[in-house]
Amino acid sequence: MVAEGSRALKRGEVEALVREVLTARLRGEQPPPSRERHAAAPRTPGGPPNPLVVNVSARHMHVTPEHLQILFGTGAKLTKMKDLYQEGEFASEQLVTLVGPRQRIIPNVRILGPTRNYTQVELSYTDGVYLGIDLPLRISGNHDGTPGCTILGPKGAVNLSKGVIRAERHVHMSNDDMTYYGVRDGDQLKLRIDGPCGLLFERVRVRFHPKVVLEVHIDTDEGNACDLESATHMELMK
Amino acid sequence: MVAEGSRALKRGEVEALVREVLTARLRGEQPPPSRERHAAAPRTPGGPPNPLVVNVSARHMHVTPEHLQILFGTGAKLTKMKDLYQEGEFASEQLVTLVGPRQRIIPNVRILGPTRNYTQVELSYTDGVYLGIDLPLRISGNHDGTPGCTILGPKGAVNLSKGVIRAERHVHMSNDDMTYYGVRDGDQLKLRIDGPCGLLFERVRVRFHPKVVLEVHIDTDEGNACDLESATHMELMK
Repeated sequence: MVAEGSRALKRGEVEALVREVLTARLRGEQPPPSRERHAAAPRTPGGPPNPLVVNVSARHMHVTPEHLQILFGTGAKLTKMKDLYQEGEFASEQLVTLVGPRQRIIPNVRILGPTRNYTQVELSYTDGVYLGIDLPLRISGNHDGTPGCTILGPKGAVNLSKGVIRAERHVHMSNDDMTYYGVRDGDQLKLRIDGPCGLLFERVRVRFHPKVVLEVHIDTDEGNACDLESATHMELMK
Repeated sequence: MVAEGSRALKRGEVEALVREVLTARLRGEQPPPSRERHAAAPRTPGGPPNPLVVNVSARHMHVTPEHLQILFGTGAKLTKMKDLYQEGEFASEQLVTLVGPRQRIIPNVRILGPTRNYTQVELSYTDGVYLGIDLPLRISGNHDGTPGCTILGPKGAVNLSKGVIRAERHVHMSNDDMTYYGVRDGDQLKLRIDGPCGLLFERVRVRFHPKVVLEVHIDTDEGNACDLESATHMELMK
C-alpha cells in the first residue's frame, strides 16, 4: 500500500494551479534541442574515421531572414545560445510558439541558426498528435505537400503554409565516413542501440556533405523509445 | 518560398488564446488509451495459435478502490467507456489530472478498470520529461523504489508516494502462445515493425497468464518512433 493524502479540491485552486503552470511554461527556459551520445569506440587502425555520435533533435525550427524579421522585428538577427555539433550550426536564443489546427499551442520552440532559404518546423509525432497535425516524414527541405502552422513571435505571426515535418532519421557523413561504411548519399543504414530499452533503427538515411562530421539525428520519440541516455552500446551498420 | 501572413500580436490576444487552449484541454475528451494493430496473418496449420496484435498503451492509471473513493467520492465505481482487448479489462469514463514536481500538469489521464490492489501510473518518457519525473522501467506491480506524484480527481487529491513507472514493453501470452514461440514467462522476444519508420524492438518481455490472448503492449514513444499506424508488416521472433 502507498502513503496517501486527501482533501477536497476547489475549482479556484485548480484554476490558480493551471495559471501558474502555464505562466511557467510560457516564461520557461527550454534546453538546447539536442542530447548527445558518443560511442565509446577508440580510434584504431582500420576503424571508423570518426566516433559515432547520436543526437536527439528536439522540436525546432529553421527560418528565413524574412520570417525572422516578421517574428522578431525589423533587423532581427539570430543570436547564439550554444554551438551544435556540426561546425557553424547553433541553437539560437530565439524562441517561438507554434499554434496548430486544434487551437493547441507549443511554446518555447527554439530556432536553429544560421538562417536558411526556407522555413521549416521539425516535430515529433507526439507533438503532431498534440497539435493535430498529421506530420509527413521528410528529409530537410522537401516540403511538397507538407502542412503548415501558425508561428508566433514577440513581434508578429507567420502563417506558414507548408514546411512542418517529422525529419526522417538520418546520419550526416563526409566522404571518409561513406567510404568506411560502404554507402552512398541517400542509402540507408541500421543503428543499433543496446540497453534496457534497446532497439534497432532501420532506414537511417545517409546524408552526404563534404564538411560534416559523422552524426546520427533521431527525434524525441525515437530517443525516448530507446532511452538513449541509458544506452550501453551503439553501432551503425548495413 | 512559402506563402505567409503577418500582423502584430497583442498580449491580450495571446492570453485569450492560451485560456481557450487550456479550457479545451481541461474539458476535452481523451481517446481510449490504445491504438490497435493486427498482423494480417491468416491462421494456417502449424501457424501461430493467435493473430499478432500490437497495441499502444497511452498514459493511464490503475487504481485501488480506496484511492478511487478519495478521487471520485465515497461509493464511487469505475464506469465502462470501452472494452479493451483482454477480456474483462476496460477503459473507464473516469479521468484524473497528474501533477509532477515541476508544477506541471497532465490532465485527462484515463483510469483503466477493474480496480486493482495497487495504484499505478504508466507514462511515456516524453511525459516523464515534461512532468520532471525520472521514470523507472518496470513490469506492472513492481513499485520498489519508484517515484510518486500528485493525482487530482473531482472530489479530492491523492499524494501517491510510489507507483509511477514506464511500463517495460511486453507481450501477453497464454500457454499456447508460449509453446508456439518457444518461450517461458519472463523471457524476451523481438518485435519487428516494417514500414517508413521501421525498427526492431528488442527485449519484449513475455508475461504469462492462462486466460490472456496474444497482445504486445508498447508505449506512446515506442508507437510513435515506429509510426505503428503506418506499419506494413509485424513479426514477433526470438
